[in-house]
Amino acid sequence: MLTGFWTACYPAWPLKTPLVQAFGPGITATLSETLAGPRGAALLEVSALGIPTPPGFVVTSLVGRRLEESGAYPCEVGGALRSAVAKLEGQCGRTFGRGEKLLLLGLRLSAKVMLPTFGSSVFNLGLNRALLPQLAAERGELFALEAYCRLLASFGSAVLRVQRRGESIDPFLRIRRTFLERSGPGVTQLPLPELAQVADEYERIILERTGSPMPAEPWDQLETVVRVAFTAWHSDRTKRVLRRTRVRAGEAGLALILSRMVYGNLAPGDGAGFLTTRDVSAGAPGLSGDLLEGGQPEDVSGGSSPTTAVSGGPASLEATRPELHEKLESLAALTERHFGDAQHLGFVIEAGELFIVEAKNARRSARAALRIAVDLVREGVIAKERALLLVNPDDLEAQLRPVIDPGESARVMLVQGLPASPGAASGRVAFSTEEVEARRQRGESVIFVRTETTPADVHALRLAQATLTVLGGLTSHAAVVARTLGKPCVVGARSLSIDLVQRRFTTPAGHTVQEGELITLDGSSGEVYRGELSQVEVRSAGEYHELLGWADEVRTLEVRANVDSAEDARLARELGASGVGLCRTEHMFLDDRGLRSMRALLLAESPKEREAALDEMALTQRSDFAGLLRAMSPLSVAVRLLDPPLYEFLPKSEAEVEALALSLSLTVEEIRRRRDALVERNSMLGLRGVRLGLLFPEIYEMQVRALFEAALIVAEDAVAPRLELIIPFVAFADELAEARRLVDQTAKEVLAASERGREIRYRVGAMIETPRAALTADGVAEHAEFFSFGTNDLTQMALGFSRDDSGRFVPKYLQRGILTADPFRRLDREGVGRLLTMAAELGRKTRPELEIGLCGEQAAEREGIRLALDLRLDYVSCSPYRIPGAKLAAAQLALEKKLS
Amino acid sequence: MLTGFWTACYPAWPLKTPLVQAFGPGITATLSETLAGPRGAALLEVSALGIPTPPGFVVTSLVGRRLEESGAYPCEVGGALRSAVAKLEGQCGRTFGRGEKLLLLGLRLSAKVMLPTFGSSVFNLGLNRALLPQLAAERGELFALEAYCRLLASFGSAVLRVQRRGESIDPFLRIRRTFLERSGPGVTQLPLPELAQVADEYERIILERTGSPMPAEPWDQLETVVRVAFTAWHSDRTKRVLRRTRVRAGEAGLALILSRMVYGNLAPGDGAGFLTTRDVSAGAPGLSGDLLEGGQPEDVSGGSSPTTAVSGGPASLEATRPELHEKLESLAALTERHFGDAQHLGFVIEAGELFIVEAKNARRSARAALRIAVDLVREGVIAKERALLLVNPDDLEAQLRPVIDPGESARVMLVQGLPASPGAASGRVAFSTEEVEARRQRGESVIFVRTETTPADVHALRLAQATLTVLGGLTSHAAVVARTLGKPCVVGARSLSIDLVQRRFTTPAGHTVQEGELITLDGSSGEVYRGELSQVEVRSAGEYHELLGWADEVRTLEVRANVDSAEDARLARELGASGVGLCRTEHMFLDDRGLRSMRALLLAESPKEREAALDEMALTQRSDFAGLLRAMSPLSVAVRLLDPPLYEFLPKSEAEVEALALSLSLTVEEIRRRRDALVERNSMLGLRGVRLGLLFPEIYEMQVRALFEAALIVAEDAVAPRLELIIPFVAFADELAEARRLVDQTAKEVLAASERGREIRYRVGAMIETPRAALTADGVAEHAEFFSFGTNDLTQMALGFSRDDSGRFVPKYLQRGILTADPFRRLDREGVGRLLTMAAELGRKTRPELEIGLCGEQAAEREGIRLALDLRLDYVSCSPYRIPGAKLAAAQLALEKKLS
Repeated sequence: MLTGFWTACYPAWPLKTPLVQAFGPGITATLSETLAGPRGAALLEVSALGIPTPPGFVVTSLVGRRLEESGAYPCEVGGALRSAVAKLEGQCGRTFGRGEKLLLLGLRLSAKVMLPTFGSSVFNLGLNRALLPQLAAERGELFALEAYCRLLASFGSAVLRVQRRGESIDPFLRIRRTFLERSGPGVTQLPLPELAQVADEYERIILERTGSPMPAEPWDQLETVVRVAFTAWHSDRTKRVLRRTRVRAGEAGLALILSRMVYGNLAPGDGAGFLTTRDVSAGAPGLSGDLLEGGQPEDVSGGSSPTTAVSGGPASLEATRPELHEKLESLAALTERHFGDAQHLGFVIEAGELFIVEAKNARRSARAALRIAVDLVREGVIAKERALLLVNPDDLEAQLRPVIDPGESARVMLVQGLPASPGAASGRVAFSTEEVEARRQRGESVIFVRTETTPADVHALRLAQATLTVLGGLTSHAAVVARTLGKPCVVGARSLSIDLVQRRFTTPAGHTVQEGELITLDGSSGEVYRGELSQVEVRSAGEYHELLGWADEVRTLEVRANVDSAEDARLARELGASGVGLCRTEHMFLDDRGLRSMRALLLAESPKEREAALDEMALTQRSDFAGLLRAMSPLSVAVRLLDPPLYEFLPKSEAEVEALALSLSLTVEEIRRRRDALVERNSMLGLRGVRLGLLFPEIYEMQVRALFEAALIVAEDAVAPRLELIIPFVAFADELAEARRLVDQTAKEVLAASERGREIRYRVGAMIETPRAALTADGVAEHAEFFSFGTNDLTQMALGFSRDDSGRFVPKYLQRGILTADPFRRLDREGVGRLLTMAAELGRKTRPELEIGLCGEQAAEREGIRLALDLRLDYVSCSPYRIPGAKLAAAQLALEKKLS
Repeated sequence: MLTGFWTACYPAWPLKTPLVQAFGPGITATLSETLAGPRGAALLEVSALGIPTPPGFVVTSLVGRRLEESGAYPCEVGGALRSAVAKLEGQCGRTFGRGEKLLLLGLRLSAKVMLPTFGSSVFNLGLNRALLPQLAAERGELFALEAYCRLLASFGSAVLRVQRRGESIDPFLRIRRTFLERSGPGVTQLPLPELAQVADEYERIILERTGSPMPAEPWDQLETVVRVAFTAWHSDRTKRVLRRTRVRAGEAGLALILSRMVYGNLAPGDGAGFLTTRDVSAGAPGLSGDLLEGGQPEDVSGGSSPTTAVSGGPASLEATRPELHEKLESLAALTERHFGDAQHLGFVIEAGELFIVEAKNARRSARAALRIAVDLVREGVIAKERALLLVNPDDLEAQLRPVIDPGESARVMLVQGLPASPGAASGRVAFSTEEVEARRQRGESVIFVRTETTPADVHALRLAQATLTVLGGLTSHAAVVARTLGKPCVVGARSLSIDLVQRRFTTPAGHTVQEGELITLDGSSGEVYRGELSQVEVRSAGEYHELLGWADEVRTLEVRANVDSAEDARLARELGASGVGLCRTEHMFLDDRGLRSMRALLLAESPKEREAALDEMALTQRSDFAGLLRAMSPLSVAVRLLDPPLYEFLPKSEAEVEALALSLSLTVEEIRRRRDALVERNSMLGLRGVRLGLLFPEIYEMQVRALFEAALIVAEDAVAPRLELIIPFVAFADELAEARRLVDQTAKEVLAASERGREIRYRVGAMIETPRAALTADGVAEHAEFFSFGTNDLTQMALGFSRDDSGRFVPKYLQRGILTADPFRRLDREGVGRLLTMAAELGRKTRPELEIGLCGEQAAEREGIRLALDLRLDYVSCSPYRIPGAKLAAAQLALEKKLS
């Protein structure tokens, strides 16, 4: 009986699954990744393509499954190994553990996740002291002894685990270093006598630490290595670690690759190396990689020895061994076509002969990914659909922004925060709006640095090149505004401490930066550097538009934009929005003029003053709305009525209070008193959204009036967009019903007064952002023509995470594996997703034709889009710069759905 | 086809439902309240019992149903009325609209909810100018004219709706008053000529305002009155109003009662009045009521004319008409036994003969309710189960507290807040802890008055007699602590404004109260009065214990207590708790000593200081826990590990900061800096609960250690309670898993060190208080042996209502009918209840034996207990003083379930 954790890791198994599968010349069998691991499966495919690989065999993950099923290591493995080795002996004309031409084996692990419970590769299995003379006779004494030392060290580390807990360096490495140092500086190869001593020392340390000598019998070596690898993999410790990594079922199995050892040092010009079939930094076609002459592939990554470039330059392989280079090029093309992607290949030149020892899809930079994907299609290597899957949607957003020049080496990192809005920017530090303004007027670039931002800082956020805050999470005020503005932003740089008296900030590492000094921040990584680092534009317009065009052909989900101004709206259209999914009207009150009129309203003494303030606000709103509607005509525009607690509009600092008192001819005490009357302990859960609308109906009335008047103005010379009015923060169906009456009444009044009134179509819906609204969505849908899912607030309330404060513990939760992603970045499918699922089901029960959209930061992200597709939502809506990524993700998921 | 709102209001209907049902001598038919309305149904029952009532008939709510079904007034009503009147004519020996002995009819409405769409009663239907001579011949000219005037006025008001919108007084009343005033002071009966003029005026105003004269034809009058009553009731306006009142299906129908007019002025000694079968203020047995000689029942409530007491005193009916009094007593006993409750009876003495015109269950004070219920059982009138249903559980809590003497007439109300903790208290106003302390030391009673309270104020809350706050809702800090302490408390008195410079508070009505002045507050009503009002103890120990004993026999749900100290625990046991369902450990850090050690921990500079602070806290906690465990032995005790954000323990005001700096030898700046580092924007959604436990494991470790050490101490000489450790604010199953590991590890260490270790049983569970925990309860239950439902936080997050701030809009929502109750007081069954239902179902799917309790303020309240029963929870847990009420409610609901 299969029980417990591993059961879930193994999918249904084919009946005639082999324990062992050979590869090499003439063998065309392949295996799934589940059985052979990714490395093993790729090697089998490469070999099946007829590409030369050192012959060998894969011990499949079936061994692990049997082990798990029976609780004991399966006895049939021994027999399987013997017959596999026998076949290999025939293939190579060599014999294992005897004879003149020894068959030595190398072992590599093949698994999706690498774990610390077993070392890495083991070399020269099948060698022992007694066989050294045979090997020496074939390859020379030095080669033989080196090979033996390598067996001892790799077997001792990987299988016998001789390294002690707390020991900082592998003991075999330590011994070899001691001998090398003794031999004098610059020595890399020990002479024979010293090498013999090293071998003795290696044997001694194995005996000393394990209590037994190194197993000499070749079959004993081979069987031990296989048994230990599988049993370690199936230990409780591995399971604990695996559970943390949340690996998916069927992906956790281990397979082993055993193959004839190939050597990059048998003839002059031999060597080993790695290459990528295309440049992975910028994406240009052509091989790119290095060869270590006289070395093995595993030595290349060590990086201590000088290497030769594969392509380019007079010393490169291309120049010196053009026939080999051509061969590599043709293998590269073959593998690219076969795997449908740029490849990373490991190769060895043994006695002038080329062997591919590893193949996998090449990792690449965001910039390279786009170029490679489009080039592969242009070259006819892959289809468009495949290309769409080769680009990470998050990287697409980065294509629109400059990045720090990868060549910039003189970087001094000051602090690492959360990457809140992508792109790089340099500028002079400014701590206040006044300072930002002054420096901008002098034509300087500015980075606005602040403990946290409030609506009063929006002006500075707009003016500055980028913003850096000490507090706040990925959906804090600064982050949201910066993303909307498309400006780089780093938030939650908690270790940074601002001293406003000395006008400087300091870091724990002892850096001090005065106001006015230059810094550079990278909003994609959250890193902040001293000085001005040079930046490069990444965008490759041709590829970019080509790929997005393909995405549009494939995707089914509509992508709208969150915009707050006409300027945003134009940007959104340019970036491909099919409408406005969310206009947060409060953002219209965040500039100087808007904020002043809102404050005047909140502090009005008499009904007359109140009315005057409302009139002024109405004018502002009407012209803002008219601009936005005109920019989006004839697409639909969803406008959310005022949402945030009124308190947020009032001044916080004493200086602001004083300034406001002056401008409104009120006393400071008066302003303080009124502000304090509006204070709430937990403003996120307070008097906001529809509650404001019902308790202060004049505000919603003014907004609705302004919106419909604006629509009438636009209708004069253009097609007025269809309006969607979103009522925020609904928890009770009756809240929506009352707000709806107010909207309908006001709209009727405004529209009745104009002949064009009949041209304005509108609908009223609810923002589903309290858990209760989701739980009672059937009742809410009675009054809503559409739902707009607000995942930010819903996440806050479902999880009890304030987005402003969660930066305190989310990073630690990520470290400990309690969270796998920041829930404000990636939608919490299990919790929040469940609420949204209920909301969609209940809402459609009442109103089958209910339109539903997903708004907010997570809407542009893969999990959010997956949910939108799963729930058959009508659209997602995100900030303009995230539209391309959202479209690509929607296309990818549509393809995924089609394939599954 | 039945569609829309009313469909739901009418339950399945018996086939042979009558349109009209007669009552009176010899008729024993009765009807349900749904058909006859409550008044009609009761009158039919009274009549069926053989009690003399003026004969008549009920027009049933079937008329309304037909009207709703067909959309038109049903034509068969006319015929039904004619045959009913014909029968009545035979019964009374009078004729309707003709003949010498006129049958005049009175009409009354009978409906569960009274609505403003139809006036009240109509008198003397069937009279007109032409018939006046006949009536005058029988009863005299004055009588006849008065009867006609009365018809005009009641018909004009109720049916013809002559009163204009905005007209403050009924025009008929205005006319009569004008004439009375003209006749001179003290005149109550107009002489004939003036009365004739009044009649003319009445007819004139009807003609003027309706455009038609008063309908003279008796049948026309009767049919009009019935048609108008039903059509008005079924208007859209009524439906709108009814929807607001959230009347239950089947309860909204209107019925009409038409009966022969009886007159309390035909013979000397005649009259009319109301009585209750028992005293409804204190509950003593014996009739209580008043008779208006020569009047009608509807005149009694007017209250302008002098009345005679029914019982007691030389002028009472008991003394002057003993035979009538005896008759009333026997009718009272008959109706009490029949209806199973004390009755309110309306009666008329017509020509010396007694008629009962109305019977309903008497309304009574909280105090009287208990006495009456127990007396009725003692007298053998009702069974115990019935008695349990006669007492409002909320009133039971009030039984434990003094109330303002109802006889106190000289009340000056200062302000009205929210009733946060019941009971009345008087004392001198104090605005600060120091002032409270100083006055208490002088032996004064003190009312602590504060804008809002924080943990630092707990000392003052304990010392003061009662607390009054300006801000906060029913579950604000002050409210929760006061209820736990059992002290009266009024919160959210927002119109009150405190001036700490002048040491006084003022109210909008212009009252000013200086610190040290006496005030009285009533925590049951939220009222605050000037001066010291006398108070009375309500508790009637005998009845109280008797009723609770009966409740214990019936209820199935366990009731545990929320307690934070040994003192609380003793009180809880005295009040009948069967264990501790929730010990909030943070409350142990709210006294001086606890707070100091917590602050020392939070501000510790070095690991050593940290450790010292933890050691001191451990000592405090251990002794607190030991006291509590001993007091509860051997019942089970559930302890919730630290929950609130750490920030809450730090000083807020500058004075506190300075005092703390002094006591900890730190600078003020240092304390401010550290406090500000812990500040959160929305602390309710911040670093609290299990998050604290995982990020600062030393605090939970200390608490667990202290708890188990305390259990070992108690186990030395008593049975240690079974411990339940509650992990608060869980949102992710893995949070609980990690916290659980910490608990288990620490418990193992402590228990292994003692021989008694094996005697300590414990379990670990989760507080389900984030929506996500409820939504993913299947995963949470993997690590939880029990669930504790925390409805306060769950309500906050599900609804997006901060309990500290919701006071701003909840009252307005209640007024507008968006809410029917404060969701922090009465569990929101639709939203929060749904989450709890999911949590219980999902949790039990994983762990069928999962124990589940409901904790928090709503747990003692009817809706909470209903949910607990519906979900088959194991217990509810509430503050000690609410235990009796919770037990009674649990018994009532168990009975309800049994009956349904």
